[in-house]
Amino acid sequence: MRALLLDGELQFVEDYPTPTPAPGEALIRVRMAGICNTDMELVRGYMHFRGVPGHEFVGVVERAPDAEAWEGRRVVGDINAACGVCATCRAGRHTHCPQRTTLGISGRDGAFAEYLTLPVANLYTVPESLSDEVAVFTEPLAAACEILEQIHVHPTDHVIVLGDGKLGLLCAQVLALTGCELTVIGRHTQKLDILTRMGIATVHVEHDAPLEGIQGADIVVEATGHPDGYATARALVRPRGIVVLKSTYHGAVEANLTMATVNEITLVGSRCGPLAAALRLLERGMVNVTALIEACYPFDAIRTAFTHAGQRGARKVLVSLAAAAPPADES
Amino acid sequence: MRALLLDGELQFVEDYPTPTPAPGEALIRVRMAGICNTDMELVRGYMHFRGVPGHEFVGVVERAPDAEAWEGRRVVGDINAACGVCATCRAGRHTHCPQRTTLGISGRDGAFAEYLTLPVANLYTVPESLSDEVAVFTEPLAAACEILEQIHVHPTDHVIVLGDGKLGLLCAQVLALTGCELTVIGRHTQKLDILTRMGIATVHVEHDAPLEGIQGADIVVEATGHPDGYATARALVRPRGIVVLKSTYHGAVEANLTMATVNEITLVGSRCGPLAAALRLLERGMVNVTALIEACYPFDAIRTAFTHAGQRGARKVLVSLAAAAPPADES
Repeated sequence: MRALLLDGELQFVEDYPTPTPAPGEALIRVRMAGICNTDMELVRGYMHFRGVPGHEFVGVVERAPDAEAWEGRRVVGDINAACGVCATCRAGRHTHCPQRTTLGISGRDGAFAEYLTLPVANLYTVPESLSDEVAVFTEPLAAACEILEQIHVHPTDHVIVLGDGKLGLLCAQVLALTGCELTVIGRHTQKLDILTRMGIATVHVEHDAPLEGIQGADIVVEATGHPDGYATARALVRPRGIVVLKSTYHGAVEANLTMATVNEITLVGSRCGPLAAALRLLERGMVNVTALIEACYPFDAIRTAFTHAGQRGARKVLVSLAAAAPPADES
Repeated sequence: MRALLLDGELQFVEDYPTPTPAPGEALIRVRMAGICNTDMELVRGYMHFRGVPGHEFVGVVERAPDAEAWEGRRVVGDINAACGVCATCRAGRHTHCPQRTTLGISGRDGAFAEYLTLPVANLYTVPESLSDEVAVFTEPLAAACEILEQIHVHPTDHVIVLGDGKLGLLCAQVLALTGCELTVIGRHTQKLDILTRMGIATVHVEHDAPLEGIQGADIVVEATGHPDGYATARALVRPRGIVVLKSTYHGAVEANLTMATVNEITLVGSRCGPLAAALRLLERGMVNVTALIEACYPFDAIRTAFTHAGQRGARKVLVSLAAAAPPADES
């Protein structure tokens, strides 16, 4: 099958082996995939990943153990494939299973290919009302919903989202649903305008400009994707406030943890979230994801899509495989 | 009055001006003071403090606005002197008042002197049953109690205390009261033995030795006092577990916050705590602090006391002023 292969650098290959589903897994034909900042970090060396990247997708189940229930269904999927039997899984923390593979990130080829495999337990049926272009946002929207799964955001809280990247824009929209006082701080006027049109307060800052007159938030969501986001978040949160850490990047950061101790700040690491909740929000039309689409490329132009996704200020770049893939048996 | 002055280096001075209490403040004659690791960090440049250090003390109220209620009373004190009127104070977070001074740490001369001043609102009467040597532990014990004020430690949790320093030994004793499964990891056999005799499990590790066979704790209390404690704590805590940050040190740390995000770890900065609760635990005999005393020096030997406190493995070094101080009027 055709696939984008990361092996030090990205290559588009025509003859990558179609994956074979393990017991309990489905073979899924990818219809659409999204490029995430994590994919760009993988290229920079994050997770030392070698294989097919891509973890945001919509696909159709081609083969599954329970054929009647699943085959032909349009699905999205939880990217963490857990063992299901270890102590961590039994404690309900499947996404943290130490034996897990993660689609397109660790130990499992991902969605920038004609086919992928995932356990059937990870799949969620996409409601008919949702287009592929909307449903492909389920995974990153779930990651935004994870914030509300982890901490209690009060309607009276002052919340700051730091960063107007793709994840920041989704986090902002999810946080806005709580009724909280919300300010999004970012560097890209065009992206902030998307939120402004939704009635969300935004502050535009130039690179390295000091943040004046903004401070004392109860909660700061650090979604800049940059190592320097932590220091800014710590400076903006009130004593005993919460900083939600959403950024993942390659490498460590010089962090003043003593000031977190002195100000008794709580830092909450936050990663993958509940896909079912994200699908409900999309179905109810509570989150506008189409405004976040930068471009959609055909699959054979995926390297161009990556270049586009890496441009400063780019929103979500999608890749469409819907019209192109032959049946799995023939690939 | 006689005082230990930090002005780049420590000097013992005979003619330091006796402090004048501001409105609402008491003048307190110091009877006993304890040397804390934070004092050693102040000497290294932490907080850029210049003045009289010392924040662990027992004293007698010499003068107070409500003379009848307070004068002659033996007291300990909350070291954070707050304004009482700002938004932070009104929200009940007095210890985080942005206008606060902190006894012997920031903006207010401390306890390594014959006299100190603190707001009357900060004072707690020491029960008669407690000796000065025990009561002087109220402030650090309160800092250990702060952990239970901030997070819910379940009796079924597996908790690791990292560090067998003075604060680590107090944190361990407070955590043991919850009934949790507790392991204290430290580098000093003699100090760990104090806990072993109390029925608390300990693990002795050599400097830089890898920690094998210990991991997956629900809660890790980082009380090493060293920048490298964070990485160890993060490696020992389970996904979605809690790391309590107790260490304060001069300078930043190279921290892998991405791994905290990936493992959805919660980091809780923890500083000063409830003195009333600490006094209750001491009065009930629930915490053994006398085992933590390394030595007690007369005040004029305080520089020797500092040298002793700085030795590897030293427990709490106390300084006694009880027999020495002349009345405030004469100083």
